[in-house]
Amino acid sequence: MSVTDSSLSKTCKASVEFLEKTILEKQSNIETWFRHEWHKSPAPFYASIDLRNAGFKLAPVDTNLFPAGFNNLNPDFDPLVIQAIQTVLERRFPDARKVLIVPENHSRNLFYFKNLAKLYCLIKNSGYEVKVATIDKIEDMPEFIPETEIPIEVARICESRICAGDFSPCLVLLNNDLSSGFPEIFKTVKHTILPPPQLGWYSRLKSTHFGHYSDIAAEFADMIDIDPWLIDPFFEGCGEINFMDRSSDDAIEEQIATMLNKIQKKYSEYGINKDPFVVVKADSGTYGMGVISVKKAEDITTLNRKQRKKMAFSKGNNAITNVLIQEGVYTNETVGGDLHVAEPVIYHIDHHAVGGFYRVHKDRSEHENLNAPGAHFEPLPFTKSCINPDCKKHPNAKPNRFYTYGVISRLALLAAAREINAVKKESAI
Amino acid sequence: MSVTDSSLSKTCKASVEFLEKTILEKQSNIETWFRHEWHKSPAPFYASIDLRNAGFKLAPVDTNLFPAGFNNLNPDFDPLVIQAIQTVLERRFPDARKVLIVPENHSRNLFYFKNLAKLYCLIKNSGYEVKVATIDKIEDMPEFIPETEIPIEVARICESRICAGDFSPCLVLLNNDLSSGFPEIFKTVKHTILPPPQLGWYSRLKSTHFGHYSDIAAEFADMIDIDPWLIDPFFEGCGEINFMDRSSDDAIEEQIATMLNKIQKKYSEYGINKDPFVVVKADSGTYGMGVISVKKAEDITTLNRKQRKKMAFSKGNNAITNVLIQEGVYTNETVGGDLHVAEPVIYHIDHHAVGGFYRVHKDRSEHENLNAPGAHFEPLPFTKSCINPDCKKHPNAKPNRFYTYGVISRLALLAAAREINAVKKESAI
Repeated sequence: MSVTDSSLSKTCKASVEFLEKTILEKQSNIETWFRHEWHKSPAPFYASIDLRNAGFKLAPVDTNLFPAGFNNLNPDFDPLVIQAIQTVLERRFPDARKVLIVPENHSRNLFYFKNLAKLYCLIKNSGYEVKVATIDKIEDMPEFIPETEIPIEVARICESRICAGDFSPCLVLLNNDLSSGFPEIFKTVKHTILPPPQLGWYSRLKSTHFGHYSDIAAEFADMIDIDPWLIDPFFEGCGEINFMDRSSDDAIEEQIATMLNKIQKKYSEYGINKDPFVVVKADSGTYGMGVISVKKAEDITTLNRKQRKKMAFSKGNNAITNVLIQEGVYTNETVGGDLHVAEPVIYHIDHHAVGGFYRVHKDRSEHENLNAPGAHFEPLPFTKSCINPDCKKHPNAKPNRFYTYGVISRLALLAAAREINAVKKESAI
Repeated sequence: MSVTDSSLSKTCKASVEFLEKTILEKQSNIETWFRHEWHKSPAPFYASIDLRNAGFKLAPVDTNLFPAGFNNLNPDFDPLVIQAIQTVLERRFPDARKVLIVPENHSRNLFYFKNLAKLYCLIKNSGYEVKVATIDKIEDMPEFIPETEIPIEVARICESRICAGDFSPCLVLLNNDLSSGFPEIFKTVKHTILPPPQLGWYSRLKSTHFGHYSDIAAEFADMIDIDPWLIDPFFEGCGEINFMDRSSDDAIEEQIATMLNKIQKKYSEYGINKDPFVVVKADSGTYGMGVISVKKAEDITTLNRKQRKKMAFSKGNNAITNVLIQEGVYTNETVGGDLHVAEPVIYHIDHHAVGGFYRVHKDRSEHENLNAPGAHFEPLPFTKSCINPDCKKHPNAKPNRFYTYGVISRLALLAAAREINAVKKESAI
């Protein structure tokens, strides 16, 4: 059997439609299972998950524990976000009334400021007093979030608490991924920081996350009786790699070749008529920098100097030391008349899927990373929520597709929850 | 000072705009206070609250603990309802997976069936297996909820549990206000019934509810520094009244006269140029039957036989024994080009305001009960949620008005929560 995405038979077990149908049929089992899992591993305060829908498989490719982009969500779903924030804060911090948001140190990123203003409003409308204060004093940081009257202050320590002026918060909400390291100011404070700063990119590894994810995908696949590969990309940590001196080229080439073979076997098993590819990326780090797609193992050895430099340094100018190779997942989704490729990004507050958008890139193709800076990045907010499937409609209809996205996304969220559990156990030791 | 509704000054302390402004300014204090209150008195599983907005005061006039009308809510807010159901069930019954809905015994009310179908879908999409079974075997009950494939079964007892066929639920959701009494079938069962059937209309008294409400309104008014009268109608229980034999006419006439005087004093204090009126209604019971508006105390003695009969028997053909007189609250809201009078009804799941609609009645006027059966009843779903105010907009703008409705409505919900607390204490004794 050899089929292309568009001709995949309705009953084909490697199709997202099959996945949607199976997930819809087993909704109450799935939700019961999730409830038990969240009980064992509480979800992080918030997260955004990048998914890729290849038409024949659907998988998370990135899990961000300090999400920006709240401004890109459909404002119609703000009440859903607010209700989720109210629920989680009330459950975890029943006496809290003041929240301090600690943002990224970006002083000129207007998109980030829009996110920050939105996050401020969401927490405020959840019924809290809110302030914004950066960890460090940033030279050219504006006094107010642009286009708002929300001041940006500088955090200070006051009696073992992080404060902004005389505002002593009950909890600190971190919207900074700590690529530059664990902040000095956090070392002495006693109150709660959400999510745990130990999960910042200075120490977190994608390979740890995807390790948990693989376990979860296997459990979930077993429960709904599917091949876990349909929701789980192969991955492998490559250990320390220095792209600049070419010393690791042979080793990584071999690993890529092995993974391409594994993917090809799966493609053949399901009759998928596509070229396998892998994605090579920094094991820690972020912002879509230092990510390349490779269809032939030898491509990795022919990277030019510019490409190598890009791989060697990601956000915060850290040299990449640990590298991850991951099965590339095509994106089968396109939007608009010009059929620009798009990938869904799902947002969570606690374990609730509260919304999402499509990341659309005009200049990239179906096997490339779409999380790239540049003017062509277009968020397209979901028109339906991720929690309200409609069994009367086709499994592929928007409410059902978004529900499926919310389910797969929650599997990645659960992986993050297990990461947090592990970090907490370590801290306790 | 003498003003009409439309000319009420912006700073006038008897205006809903003043109330909206005060509530917006004190949002975080109010929400913090609510969080503490819900901790002490958990909200009922669900409720709908009828409000009346007179322009100069805003108050709840009825609190329904077994609400129908879920079909009248804006479907755009279904995700908000679902998320709230998930949150409360998960918190209170972490192991539950099967829910049995016990509906009213209505076999021909198509509006009620639409509510039932909607409630079924909301619980199902929250991730539960759901069945519907009536308490009693009803002669002409259809096999399925009309226009759906949802069977209506008859509940039976099986090993001290209420079951529907071989479906043994983890919890029972009661959507029947028990006007006809505490069902025999509930007497022996051991599992949880939500809301507690002890709160059914066979025993619940509106005067108890409004007693709790008055305490709460006083606490709340003190916190935000307003006159509690702005949110709390006067009321008085009249004890046992038999409208048919006229024996209580003198006593009730005197009580009405006293209350009309009290209201007139308040109207004079605030310069409100309106005729005071009182509403006389059954202290227990429901469905807007047995409710009359009276502007002159002697009107009560000149009721004709038909009117007396209407007062003497409410839903379930119970003779009215206990009667409540309550300050009438004008409704200042009109909808449509024809300016039909309307009153807001707010829906809650747990302590969350999840939506609402306007009850519109073409044939009634601003001082009449709008909860009356008939073809002219028109629900008009809210276009905005009740939890997302917008400080940049006018206090009277829809998001802010609906937020205020959600706050006042939650005060009535808290009164219901205290009723439940009291019932639980009694049961424990």
